[in-house]
Amino acid sequence: MKFKLIVAYDGTNYGGWQVQLNASTVQSVLQNALSTALRTPTLATGSGRTDAGVHARGQVAHFETETPVDIYRLEASLNGLLPQDIRVLAIEEAPDTFHARYSAKSKIYHYHLHLGPVQDPFKRLYSLHVPMPLNLEKMREACSLFVGEHDFASFANEPHTDKPLLDTTRTMYRLELIDEPGGVRLEYEADGFLYKMARTIAGTLLEVGKNKLALEEIEEIFAAKDRKRAAYAAAPHGLFLVQVNY
Amino acid sequence: MKFKLIVAYDGTNYGGWQVQLNASTVQSVLQNALSTALRTPTLATGSGRTDAGVHARGQVAHFETETPVDIYRLEASLNGLLPQDIRVLAIEEAPDTFHARYSAKSKIYHYHLHLGPVQDPFKRLYSLHVPMPLNLEKMREACSLFVGEHDFASFANEPHTDKPLLDTTRTMYRLELIDEPGGVRLEYEADGFLYKMARTIAGTLLEVGKNKLALEEIEEIFAAKDRKRAAYAAAPHGLFLVQVNY
Repeated sequence: MKFKLIVAYDGTNYGGWQVQLNASTVQSVLQNALSTALRTPTLATGSGRTDAGVHARGQVAHFETETPVDIYRLEASLNGLLPQDIRVLAIEEAPDTFHARYSAKSKIYHYHLHLGPVQDPFKRLYSLHVPMPLNLEKMREACSLFVGEHDFASFANEPHTDKPLLDTTRTMYRLELIDEPGGVRLEYEADGFLYKMARTIAGTLLEVGKNKLALEEIEEIFAAKDRKRAAYAAAPHGLFLVQVNY
Repeated sequence: MKFKLIVAYDGTNYGGWQVQLNASTVQSVLQNALSTALRTPTLATGSGRTDAGVHARGQVAHFETETPVDIYRLEASLNGLLPQDIRVLAIEEAPDTFHARYSAKSKIYHYHLHLGPVQDPFKRLYSLHVPMPLNLEKMREACSLFVGEHDFASFANEPHTDKPLLDTTRTMYRLELIDEPGGVRLEYEADGFLYKMARTIAGTLLEVGKNKLALEEIEEIFAAKDRKRAAYAAAPHGLFLVQVNY
Protein backbone atom coordinates (compact mmCIF):
# COMPACT_ATOMS: atom_id res chain seq x y z
CA MET A 1 0.00 0.00 0.00
CA LYS A 2 1.13 3.51 -0.82
CA PHE A 3 0.41 6.56 1.30
CA LYS A 4 0.78 10.28 0.83
CA LEU A 5 1.89 12.43 3.76
CA ILE A 6 1.52 16.19 4.09
CA VAL A 7 4.22 17.53 6.37
CA ALA A 8 4.95 20.96 7.88
CA TYR A 9 8.29 21.79 9.41
CA ASP A 10 10.25 24.63 10.88
CA GLY A 11 13.54 24.18 9.04
CA THR A 12 15.59 26.21 11.53
CA ASN A 13 17.15 23.22 13.24
CA TYR A 14 17.61 20.92 10.23
CA GLY A 15 20.14 20.46 7.46
CA GLY A 16 17.29 20.57 4.93
CA TRP A 17 14.89 17.85 3.78
CA GLN A 18 17.17 15.28 2.25
CA VAL A 19 19.03 12.59 4.21
CA GLN A 20 22.68 13.51 4.75
CA LEU A 21 25.50 11.87 6.57
CA ASN A 22 26.49 14.77 8.78
CA ALA A 23 23.28 16.58 9.62
CA SER A 24 19.89 15.91 11.08
CA THR A 25 17.42 16.27 8.23
CA VAL A 26 13.65 16.26 8.07
CA GLN A 27 13.57 13.19 5.84
CA SER A 28 15.75 11.18 8.21
CA VAL A 29 13.77 12.20 11.29
CA LEU A 30 10.51 11.39 9.48
CA GLN A 31 11.82 8.02 8.25
CA ASN A 32 12.88 7.14 11.78
CA ALA A 33 9.41 7.97 13.09
CA LEU A 34 7.71 6.01 10.27
CA SER A 35 9.99 3.02 10.83
CA THR A 36 9.24 3.06 14.56
CA ALA A 37 5.48 3.49 14.09
CA LEU A 38 5.25 0.79 11.39
CA ARG A 39 7.82 -1.45 13.14
CA THR A 40 9.75 -1.93 9.93
CA PRO A 41 12.35 0.16 8.10
CA THR A 42 10.39 2.56 5.92
CA LEU A 43 11.59 5.14 3.41
CA ALA A 44 9.83 8.42 2.68
CA THR A 45 10.24 10.11 -0.71
CA GLY A 46 9.66 13.85 -0.79
CA SER A 47 8.33 16.07 -3.56
CA GLY A 48 11.79 17.60 -3.67
CA ARG A 49 14.48 18.72 -1.33
CA THR A 50 14.36 21.92 0.64
CA ASP A 51 17.70 23.46 1.65
CA ALA A 52 19.00 23.82 5.17
CA GLY A 53 16.93 26.44 6.99
CA VAL A 54 14.06 26.45 4.47
CA HIS A 55 10.61 25.83 5.98
CA ALA A 56 7.56 23.92 4.76
CA ARG A 57 3.88 24.32 5.38
CA GLY A 58 2.89 21.60 2.91
CA GLN A 59 5.77 19.35 1.89
CA VAL A 60 4.46 16.09 0.42
CA ALA A 61 6.09 12.69 0.76
CA HIS A 62 5.03 9.15 -0.03
CA PHE A 63 5.88 5.83 1.55
CA GLU A 64 5.03 2.23 0.87
CA THR A 65 4.38 -0.39 3.50
CA GLU A 66 3.17 -3.95 3.90
CA THR A 67 2.01 -3.13 7.43
CA PRO A 68 -1.75 -2.59 7.75
CA VAL A 69 -2.25 1.12 8.42
CA ASP A 70 -4.96 2.83 10.44
CA ILE A 71 -4.48 6.35 9.06
CA TYR A 72 -5.83 8.16 12.09
CA ARG A 73 -3.70 6.19 14.54
CA LEU A 74 -0.60 6.44 12.40
CA GLU A 75 -0.91 10.22 12.25
CA ALA A 76 -1.23 10.36 16.04
CA SER A 77 1.75 8.00 16.50
CA LEU A 78 3.95 9.94 14.11
CA ASN A 79 3.15 13.26 15.74
CA GLY A 80 3.87 11.66 19.10
CA LEU A 81 7.24 10.40 17.88
CA LEU A 82 8.29 13.47 15.89
CA PRO A 83 9.80 16.59 17.46
CA GLN A 84 7.39 19.54 17.67
CA ASP A 85 9.08 21.35 14.78
CA ILE A 86 7.94 18.63 12.35
CA ARG A 87 4.24 17.78 12.10
CA VAL A 88 2.32 15.39 9.91
CA LEU A 89 -0.78 17.34 8.86
CA ALA A 90 -2.49 14.56 6.88
CA ILE A 91 -2.08 11.01 5.65
CA GLU A 92 -4.02 9.71 2.66
CA GLU A 93 -4.02 6.43 0.79
CA ALA A 94 -2.50 6.97 -2.66
CA PRO A 95 -2.68 4.98 -5.89
CA ASP A 96 0.33 2.76 -6.72
CA THR A 97 1.21 5.14 -9.54
CA PHE A 98 1.56 8.11 -7.17
CA HIS A 99 5.04 9.53 -6.70
CA ALA A 100 5.56 12.58 -4.48
CA ARG A 101 8.17 13.99 -6.86
CA TYR A 102 7.27 12.79 -10.34
CA SER A 103 3.49 13.16 -10.03
CA ALA A 104 3.73 16.80 -8.89
CA LYS A 105 2.05 19.20 -11.32
CA SER A 106 3.12 22.41 -9.62
CA LYS A 107 4.58 23.78 -6.41
CA ILE A 108 3.89 26.95 -4.49
CA TYR A 109 6.66 28.67 -2.54
CA HIS A 110 6.50 31.88 -0.52
CA TYR A 111 9.50 34.08 0.25
CA HIS A 112 8.95 36.54 3.12
CA LEU A 113 10.70 39.91 3.20
CA HIS A 114 10.46 41.75 6.51
CA LEU A 115 10.78 45.49 5.84
CA GLY A 116 11.59 48.26 8.29
CA PRO A 117 14.57 49.68 10.14
CA VAL A 118 14.44 47.30 13.14
CA GLN A 119 13.91 43.56 12.83
CA ASP A 120 10.91 42.07 14.63
CA PRO A 121 12.45 39.32 16.81
CA PHE A 122 9.46 37.08 16.06
CA LYS A 123 10.15 37.21 12.33
CA ARG A 124 13.89 36.65 12.54
CA LEU A 125 13.75 32.93 11.77
CA TYR A 126 10.95 33.15 9.20
CA SER A 127 11.75 36.06 6.91
CA LEU A 128 14.66 38.00 5.46
CA HIS A 129 15.02 41.37 7.15
CA VAL A 130 15.62 44.21 4.69
CA PRO A 131 16.27 47.46 6.59
CA MET A 132 16.65 49.73 3.54
CA PRO A 133 13.69 50.98 1.50
CA LEU A 134 12.82 48.90 -1.56
CA ASN A 135 11.26 50.02 -4.82
CA LEU A 136 8.31 47.66 -4.57
CA GLU A 137 6.65 48.90 -7.75
CA LYS A 138 9.73 48.07 -9.77
CA MET A 139 9.93 44.66 -8.07
CA ARG A 140 6.31 44.00 -9.07
CA GLU A 141 7.12 44.85 -12.66
CA ALA A 142 10.15 42.57 -12.54
CA CYS A 143 8.02 39.69 -11.19
CA SER A 144 6.04 39.63 -14.43
CA LEU A 145 9.26 39.00 -16.40
CA PHE A 146 9.63 35.60 -14.70
CA VAL A 147 6.12 34.41 -15.50
CA GLY A 148 5.68 31.95 -18.37
CA GLU A 149 7.97 29.32 -19.87
CA HIS A 150 11.66 30.25 -19.58
CA ASP A 151 15.05 28.62 -19.48
CA PHE A 152 15.94 29.31 -15.83
CA ALA A 153 19.60 28.15 -16.16
CA SER A 154 20.87 31.55 -14.97
CA PHE A 155 18.74 31.24 -11.84
CA ALA A 156 19.74 27.72 -10.78
CA ASN A 157 22.78 26.31 -9.08
CA GLU A 158 24.16 22.96 -10.15
CA PRO A 159 22.94 20.53 -7.56
CA HIS A 160 25.72 19.14 -5.37
CA THR A 161 24.86 15.50 -5.66
CA ASP A 162 22.57 14.79 -8.62
CA LYS A 163 23.62 14.52 -12.21
CA PRO A 164 23.99 17.85 -14.05
CA LEU A 165 20.73 19.39 -15.13
CA LEU A 166 19.86 18.72 -18.73
CA ASP A 167 16.60 20.55 -18.99
CA THR A 168 16.46 23.88 -17.22
CA THR A 169 13.20 25.06 -18.79
CA ARG A 170 10.35 25.56 -16.36
CA THR A 171 7.00 27.30 -16.49
CA MET A 172 6.29 29.92 -13.82
CA TYR A 173 2.51 30.15 -13.55
CA ARG A 174 2.51 32.99 -11.09
CA LEU A 175 5.00 35.27 -9.33
CA GLU A 176 3.50 38.05 -7.26
CA LEU A 177 4.63 40.41 -4.54
CA ILE A 178 1.92 40.48 -1.88
CA ASP A 179 1.70 42.91 1.05
CA GLU A 180 1.62 41.34 4.49
CA PRO A 181 1.98 42.70 8.04
CA GLY A 182 5.56 43.91 8.49
CA GLY A 183 6.60 43.47 4.89
CA VAL A 184 5.87 41.65 1.66
CA ARG A 185 6.05 38.11 0.37
CA LEU A 186 6.81 36.66 -3.02
CA GLU A 187 4.33 33.99 -4.04
CA TYR A 188 5.68 31.63 -6.70
CA GLU A 189 3.88 28.84 -8.50
CA ALA A 190 5.76 26.84 -11.14
CA ASP A 191 5.65 23.37 -12.65
CA GLY A 192 9.02 22.80 -11.02
CA PHE A 193 11.84 24.64 -9.31
CA LEU A 194 15.51 24.11 -10.08
CA TYR A 195 18.08 23.96 -7.27
CA LYS A 196 18.10 27.33 -5.44
CA MET A 197 15.86 28.85 -8.12
CA ALA A 198 13.28 30.37 -5.77
CA ARG A 199 16.00 31.95 -3.61
CA THR A 200 18.02 33.20 -6.59
CA ILE A 201 14.93 34.85 -8.06
CA ALA A 202 14.27 36.45 -4.65
CA GLY A 203 17.88 37.70 -4.53
CA THR A 204 17.58 39.09 -8.05
CA LEU A 205 14.30 40.84 -7.27
CA LEU A 206 15.94 42.36 -4.19
CA GLU A 207 18.65 43.84 -6.41
CA VAL A 208 15.87 45.33 -8.53
CA GLY A 209 14.19 46.72 -5.40
CA LYS A 210 17.49 48.31 -4.33
CA ASN A 211 17.80 49.89 -7.79
CA LYS A 212 21.00 47.95 -8.42
CA LEU A 213 19.54 46.04 -11.34
CA ALA A 214 17.44 47.44 -14.20
CA LEU A 215 14.42 45.62 -15.55
CA GLU A 216 16.11 45.30 -18.96
CA GLU A 217 18.99 43.42 -17.38
CA ILE A 218 16.70 40.60 -16.36
CA GLU A 219 16.12 39.60 -19.98
CA GLU A 220 19.89 39.67 -20.48
CA ILE A 221 20.40 37.43 -17.46
CA PHE A 222 17.84 34.95 -18.81
CA ALA A 223 19.53 35.00 -22.23
CA ALA A 224 23.02 34.45 -20.82
CA LYS A 225 22.05 31.05 -19.32
CA ASP A 226 24.87 31.60 -16.85
CA ARG A 227 24.32 31.32 -13.09
CA LYS A 228 27.03 33.89 -12.45
CA ARG A 229 24.89 36.60 -14.05
CA ALA A 230 22.05 36.51 -11.52
CA ALA A 231 22.25 37.77 -7.95
CA TYR A 232 23.15 35.75 -4.87
CA ALA A 233 20.51 33.37 -3.51
CA ALA A 234 18.50 35.12 -0.79
CA ALA A 235 18.89 33.55 2.67
CA PRO A 236 17.08 30.23 3.18
CA HIS A 237 15.08 31.19 6.28
CA GLY A 238 12.71 33.46 4.29
CA LEU A 239 11.54 30.59 2.09
CA PHE A 240 8.53 28.33 2.67
CA LEU A 241 7.36 25.41 0.55
CA VAL A 242 3.64 26.04 0.88
CA GLN A 243 1.86 23.54 -1.34
CA VAL A 244 2.48 20.79 -3.87
CA ASN A 245 -0.27 20.25 -6.42
CA TYR A 246 -0.92 16.89 -8.12
CA MET B 1 19.53 62.21 31.85
CA LYS B 2 16.80 59.62 31.91
CA PHE B 3 15.71 57.59 28.90
CA LYS B 4 12.82 55.28 28.13
CA LEU B 5 13.42 52.16 26.03
CA ILE B 6 10.81 50.10 24.23
CA VAL B 7 12.03 46.54 23.87
CA ALA B 8 10.72 43.46 22.05
CA TYR B 9 12.02 40.00 22.80
CA ASP B 10 11.45 36.38 21.99
CA GLY B 11 11.55 34.91 25.49
CA THR B 12 12.24 31.35 24.32
CA ASN B 13 15.92 31.38 25.19
CA TYR B 14 15.81 33.46 28.37
CA GLY B 15 15.14 32.91 32.02
CA GLY B 16 12.65 35.77 31.97
CA TRP B 17 13.20 39.52 32.23
CA GLN B 18 14.77 39.94 35.63
CA VAL B 19 18.47 39.49 36.39
CA GLN B 20 19.15 36.11 37.98
CA LEU B 21 22.31 34.39 39.09
CA ASN B 22 21.90 31.19 37.14
CA ALA B 23 20.20 32.14 33.90
CA SER B 24 20.64 34.48 30.98
CA THR B 25 17.89 37.07 31.29
CA VAL B 26 16.70 39.86 29.04
CA GLN B 27 17.50 42.51 31.63
CA SER B 28 21.08 41.29 32.07
CA VAL B 29 21.71 41.04 28.33
CA LEU B 30 20.22 44.51 27.82
CA GLN B 31 22.25 45.99 30.70
CA ASN B 32 25.42 44.50 29.23
CA ALA B 33 24.66 46.07 25.85
CA LEU B 34 23.81 49.43 27.44
CA SER B 35 26.97 49.36 29.54
CA THR B 36 29.07 48.58 26.47
CA ALA B 37 27.41 51.21 24.29
CA LEU B 38 27.60 53.90 26.98
CA ARG B 39 31.05 52.76 28.19
CA THR B 40 29.95 52.78 31.79
CA PRO B 41 28.02 50.29 33.95
CA THR B 42 24.34 51.07 33.37
CA LEU B 43 21.24 49.57 34.94
CA ALA B 44 17.90 49.16 33.18
CA THR B 45 14.68 49.06 35.19
CA GLY B 46 11.75 47.29 33.53
CA SER B 47 8.02 47.93 33.82
CA GLY B 48 7.82 44.57 35.53
CA ARG B 49 9.27 41.13 35.19
CA THR B 50 8.15 38.61 32.63
CA ASP B 51 8.61 34.94 33.48
CA ALA B 52 10.95 32.53 31.72
CA GLY B 53 9.60 31.85 28.23
CA VAL B 54 7.19 34.82 28.18
CA HIS B 55 7.61 37.15 25.19
CA ALA B 56 7.36 40.91 24.80
CA ARG B 57 6.41 43.13 21.90
CA GLY B 58 6.54 46.31 23.98
CA GLN B 59 8.35 45.92 27.29
CA VAL B 60 9.40 49.32 28.64
CA ALA B 61 12.55 50.04 30.64
CA HIS B 62 14.32 53.16 31.79
CA PHE B 63 17.95 53.95 32.42
CA GLU B 64 19.89 56.95 33.64
CA THR B 65 23.25 58.04 32.35
CA GLU B 66 25.73 60.89 32.57
CA THR B 67 27.03 60.01 29.11
CA PRO B 68 25.75 62.29 26.33
CA VAL B 69 23.35 60.21 24.23
CA ASP B 70 22.63 60.46 20.51
CA ILE B 71 19.36 58.52 20.51
CA TYR B 72 19.56 57.37 16.92
CA ARG B 73 23.14 56.13 17.24
CA LEU B 74 22.49 54.47 20.59
CA GLU B 75 19.55 52.52 19.15
CA ALA B 76 21.74 51.31 16.28
CA SER B 77 24.60 50.38 18.66
CA LEU B 78 22.31 48.51 21.01
CA ASN B 79 20.71 46.54 18.19
CA GLY B 80 24.18 45.78 16.89
CA LEU B 81 25.29 44.51 20.30
CA LEU B 82 22.12 42.64 21.24
CA PRO B 83 21.28 39.15 19.99
CA GLN B 84 18.59 39.08 17.29
CA ASP B 85 15.96 37.81 19.70
CA ILE B 86 16.07 41.09 21.65
CA ARG B 87 15.46 44.37 19.80
CA VAL B 88 15.27 47.94 20.97
CA LEU B 89 12.31 49.41 19.08
CA ALA B 90 12.61 52.98 20.35
CA ILE B 91 14.52 55.22 22.74
CA GLU B 92 13.02 58.45 24.05
CA GLU B 93 14.22 61.04 26.51
CA ALA B 94 12.11 60.84 29.68
CA PRO B 95 11.48 63.28 32.52
CA ASP B 96 13.40 62.70 35.75
CA THR B 97 10.16 61.65 37.41
CA PHE B 98 9.59 58.82 34.93
CA HIS B 99 9.85 55.29 36.30
CA ALA B 100 9.19 52.34 33.98
CA ARG B 101 7.41 50.45 36.76
CA TYR B 102 5.84 53.03 39.04
CA SER B 103 4.71 55.43 36.32
CA ALA B 104 2.84 52.72 34.37
CA LYS B 105 -0.90 53.37 34.17
CA SER B 106 -1.85 50.11 32.52
CA LYS B 107 -0.41 47.09 30.72
CA ILE B 108 -1.70 45.05 27.83
CA TYR B 109 -0.94 41.35 27.61
CA HIS B 110 -2.02 38.83 24.97
CA TYR B 111 -2.28 35.10 25.53
CA HIS B 112 -2.42 33.03 22.32
CA LEU B 113 -4.31 29.74 22.17
CA HIS B 114 -3.64 27.65 19.07
CA LEU B 115 -6.67 25.44 18.42
CA GLY B 116 -6.92 22.36 16.24
CA PRO B 117 -5.93 18.71 16.33
CA VAL B 118 -2.36 19.14 15.03
CA GLN B 119 0.01 21.85 16.24
CA ASP B 120 1.37 24.25 13.63
CA PRO B 121 5.17 24.00 14.05
CA PHE B 122 5.49 27.76 13.49
CA LYS B 123 3.23 28.50 16.45
CA ARG B 124 4.83 26.06 18.88
CA LEU B 125 7.00 28.64 20.63
CA TYR B 126 4.42 31.44 20.57
CA SER B 127 1.10 29.95 21.62
CA LEU B 128 -0.37 27.20 23.77
CA HIS B 129 -1.66 24.35 21.62
CA VAL B 130 -5.08 23.11 22.71
CA PRO B 131 -6.07 20.06 20.64
CA MET B 132 -9.50 19.49 22.20
CA PRO B 133 -12.55 21.62 21.31
CA LEU B 134 -13.21 24.55 23.62
CA ASN B 135 -16.50 26.17 24.51
CA LEU B 136 -15.46 29.62 23.32
CA GLU B 137 -18.85 31.21 24.06
CA LYS B 138 -18.62 30.17 27.67
CA MET B 139 -15.04 31.45 27.83
CA ARG B 140 -16.21 34.82 26.48
CA GLU B 141 -18.86 34.99 29.19
CA ALA B 142 -16.26 34.11 31.79
CA CYS B 143 -13.95 36.87 30.56
CA SER B 144 -16.47 39.48 31.58
CA LEU B 145 -16.34 38.23 35.19
CA PHE B 146 -12.71 39.36 35.45
CA VAL B 147 -13.36 42.89 34.22
CA GLY B 148 -13.49 45.67 36.81
CA GLU B 149 -11.89 46.11 40.21
CA HIS B 150 -11.33 42.80 42.01
CA ASP B 151 -9.13 41.27 44.63
CA PHE B 152 -7.09 38.92 42.41
CA ALA B 153 -5.40 37.09 45.35
CA SER B 154 -6.74 33.74 44.12
CA PHE B 155 -5.16 34.34 40.73
CA ALA B 156 -1.66 35.33 41.86
CA ASN B 157 1.30 33.36 43.10
CA GLU B 158 3.43 34.72 45.88
CA PRO B 159 6.49 36.13 44.18
CA HIS B 160 9.65 34.15 44.92
CA THR B 161 11.87 37.04 45.84
CA ASP B 162 9.88 40.16 46.72
CA LYS B 163 8.12 40.84 49.97
CA PRO B 164 4.65 39.24 50.28
CA LEU B 165 1.91 41.08 48.44
CA LEU B 166 -0.11 43.36 50.64
CA ASP B 167 -2.53 44.74 48.13
CA THR B 168 -3.87 42.26 45.62
CA THR B 169 -6.63 44.46 44.26
CA ARG B 170 -6.28 45.36 40.61
CA THR B 171 -8.59 46.81 37.97
CA MET B 172 -9.01 44.85 34.76
CA TYR B 173 -10.09 47.35 32.13
CA ARG B 174 -10.61 44.79 29.41
CA LEU B 175 -10.46 41.02 28.94
CA GLU B 176 -11.59 39.75 25.59
CA LEU B 177 -11.26 36.57 23.56
CA ILE B 178 -10.41 37.55 19.98
CA ASP B 179 -10.40 35.23 16.95
CA GLU B 180 -7.11 35.01 15.06
CA PRO B 181 -5.79 32.68 12.35
CA GLY B 182 -5.34 29.22 13.87
CA GLY B 183 -6.99 30.01 17.17
CA VAL B 184 -7.91 32.75 19.59
CA ARG B 185 -6.09 35.16 21.85
CA LEU B 186 -6.96 36.67 25.19
CA GLU B 187 -6.39 40.41 25.30
CA TYR B 188 -5.96 41.76 28.82
CA GLU B 189 -5.58 45.35 29.94
CA ALA B 190 -5.26 46.12 33.66
CA ASP B 191 -3.73 48.78 35.87
CA GLY B 192 -1.34 46.09 37.05
CA PHE B 193 -0.79 42.36 36.98
CA LEU B 194 0.16 40.28 40.00
CA TYR B 195 2.77 37.54 39.71
CA LYS B 196 1.50 34.88 37.26
CA MET B 197 -1.93 36.54 37.17
CA ALA B 198 -2.29 36.66 33.38
CA ARG B 199 -1.31 33.01 33.03
CA THR B 200 -3.50 31.86 35.93
CA ILE B 201 -6.50 33.63 34.42
CA ALA B 202 -5.71 31.96 31.07
CA GLY B 203 -5.51 28.57 32.81
CA THR B 204 -8.80 29.21 34.58
CA LEU B 205 -10.52 30.27 31.37
CA LEU B 206 -9.22 27.10 29.71
CA GLU B 207 -10.91 25.06 32.44
CA VAL B 208 -14.12 26.92 31.63
CA GLY B 209 -13.64 26.20 27.93
CA LYS B 210 -13.17 22.50 28.67
CA ASN B 211 -16.40 22.56 30.71
CA LYS B 212 -14.49 21.62 33.85
CA LEU B 213 -15.35 24.83 35.65
CA ALA B 214 -18.75 26.53 35.80
CA LEU B 215 -19.15 30.28 35.51
CA GLU B 216 -20.58 30.44 39.04
CA GLU B 217 -17.40 28.90 40.42
CA ILE B 218 -15.35 31.88 39.26
CA GLU B 219 -17.07 34.14 41.76
CA GLU B 220 -16.36 31.56 44.45
CA ILE B 221 -12.70 31.47 43.49
CA PHE B 222 -12.48 35.28 43.70
CA ALA B 223 -14.19 35.21 47.10
CA ALA B 224 -11.89 32.51 48.50
CA LYS B 225 -8.78 34.70 48.05
CA ASP B 226 -6.82 31.47 47.91
CA ARG B 227 -4.42 30.70 45.08
CA LYS B 228 -5.10 26.98 45.41
CA ARG B 229 -8.70 27.49 44.22
CA ALA B 230 -7.83 28.72 40.70
CA ALA B 231 -6.44 26.57 37.90
CA TYR B 232 -2.78 26.01 37.04
CA ALA B 233 -0.99 28.86 35.30
CA ALA B 234 -1.11 28.31 31.54
CA ALA B 235 2.30 27.75 29.92
CA PRO B 236 4.51 30.85 29.62
CA HIS B 237 5.20 30.64 25.87
CA GLY B 238 1.64 31.70 24.97
CA LEU B 239 1.98 35.02 26.77
CA PHE B 240 3.14 38.35 25.28
CA LEU B 241 3.58 41.67 27.07
CA VAL B 242 2.26 43.87 24.28
CA GLN B 243 2.18 47.42 25.61
CA VAL B 244 2.75 49.50 28.71
CA ASN B 245 0.75 52.71 28.93
CA TYR B 246 1.92 55.76 30.91
